[in-house]
Amino acid sequence: MTWFEEKLYDHWRQSFKIGRVLFHEKTDFQDLVIFETPGFQRVLALDGIIQVTQGDEFVYHEMLAHVSTLAHGDARAVLIIGGGDGGVLREVLRHPVERCTMVEIDPGVIELCRKFMPDISRGAFDDPRAEIVIADGVKYVAETDRKFDVIIVDSTDPIGPGEVLFTEAFYASCRRILTERGVVVTQNGVPFLQPEELTTTHRRLSKLFPDAGFFVAAVPTYVGGFMTLGWASLDPSNRARPVEAIREQFTKLQINTRYYTPEIHVASFALPKYVQDLMTKE
Amino acid sequence: MTWFEEKLYDHWRQSFKIGRVLFHEKTDFQDLVIFETPGFQRVLALDGIIQVTQGDEFVYHEMLAHVSTLAHGDARAVLIIGGGDGGVLREVLRHPVERCTMVEIDPGVIELCRKFMPDISRGAFDDPRAEIVIADGVKYVAETDRKFDVIIVDSTDPIGPGEVLFTEAFYASCRRILTERGVVVTQNGVPFLQPEELTTTHRRLSKLFPDAGFFVAAVPTYVGGFMTLGWASLDPSNRARPVEAIREQFTKLQINTRYYTPEIHVASFALPKYVQDLMTKE
Repeated sequence: MTWFEEKLYDHWRQSFKIGRVLFHEKTDFQDLVIFETPGFQRVLALDGIIQVTQGDEFVYHEMLAHVSTLAHGDARAVLIIGGGDGGVLREVLRHPVERCTMVEIDPGVIELCRKFMPDISRGAFDDPRAEIVIADGVKYVAETDRKFDVIIVDSTDPIGPGEVLFTEAFYASCRRILTERGVVVTQNGVPFLQPEELTTTHRRLSKLFPDAGFFVAAVPTYVGGFMTLGWASLDPSNRARPVEAIREQFTKLQINTRYYTPEIHVASFALPKYVQDLMTKE
Repeated sequence: MTWFEEKLYDHWRQSFKIGRVLFHEKTDFQDLVIFETPGFQRVLALDGIIQVTQGDEFVYHEMLAHVSTLAHGDARAVLIIGGGDGGVLREVLRHPVERCTMVEIDPGVIELCRKFMPDISRGAFDDPRAEIVIADGVKYVAETDRKFDVIIVDSTDPIGPGEVLFTEAFYASCRRILTERGVVVTQNGVPFLQPEELTTTHRRLSKLFPDAGFFVAAVPTYVGGFMTLGWASLDPSNRARPVEAIREQFTKLQINTRYYTPEIHVASFALPKYVQDLMTKE
């Protein structure tokens, strides 16, 4: 095997040249592989679908973490559902949050990523503000008594086990555990190739939140144009936060990003016409 | 052959399932194929590199044509270099321009696209305001006595014959034939995978224009995150044109777009940090 071919779509494929396979485990339940490829360094694929690459993970990890946190402006308690590689956790902890709780269903993913892709979490799991809960995210949000300012859903695509993280019941539980001005952001696929996902998510979020929609990011290995990130907020003013206020708060953090800027933050809410059309599709 | 595999990069490939091959000509000079694929309809590939697909051409054709024309605000004479498929011509002619001159070096490309991909030009070649010149674009801009408000360079990548459209001499000729507030926009590749191209173009354009930079578009089949479109303007106020003014002019056109909106126009000038860093790289 010298090429890894992703088979997410039946008419279109991407392939990565394999430099070295670092880990491969094929069970009755799943096929997990971590390999190295020039241009994207280490790649984790689950059941033949690319989950994360070291080369471009910064795009969606930065966008999930910084857009949500800086739109809110005063996030103290943050909840991550999924995100076992630790990339979102790493970015959230660059903010002065009091606690970041990460609920991951599979401890094996955390262990593998810490071992083979340590550059993604970069010590975030050892931060005293990080609380790692090994549990079913759906059950967690349905049962917890805690409240959160920001919830970040870093899930797989809505196929197989990840599907429950796209249901109305899950979104309703998220709303229930948000503080007054709370924000939820989610991974929502590539609408050019997965259009139904966007229409369905928008219908479900709109029922539950006064401000529901999407923002976009261009992720090299999530091919097909923009990926959309779901946006649901109890306070519509979070979306409208002026770039000057975001810039002032971001500058104080004194952090380096590779994709996110305050200007990109604001710009990411401008949606291409075909995405807008999918939102209002019956 | 049931899959078409693009080999633009040595470590990463995309493949399209071939439904039907409509045209294939392999000579000593080039290998040109037009085929059908589910999801992107008809695709034209030159020497193994995807040039245009019917499914997503709207993204960069709309962005090249509308951002340049609406940033200028009063474009009467527009010049297209390349663009043999007629997609940019189609979008420019939706504006009340007096004349749109298209300089294409290869009449064969125009003929093939009109025959096999008529949905791209959609009658634009028959518009009385369209002037089609079969000539070398480099020679044309160096010699013409005419002036243009907007120049759109719809070229291939800077490999092989397309390379001359990325030189300082070519950009200087463009500047020479611009009217006072003129704008040049160019196809400038995918910076995540072709970083040198962006750095080089920025250095060359900055020497010649008071306002030089890039704007971005997410094109499904130009994989690797954002593609950048080069921006060079004699008047810095073109870039800063307020969204309200753009919206007012765009609304009057009464046209449907699938990617472009006035909000996307403004947002497309917000560049990810890694793109900004490439601009200032030595």
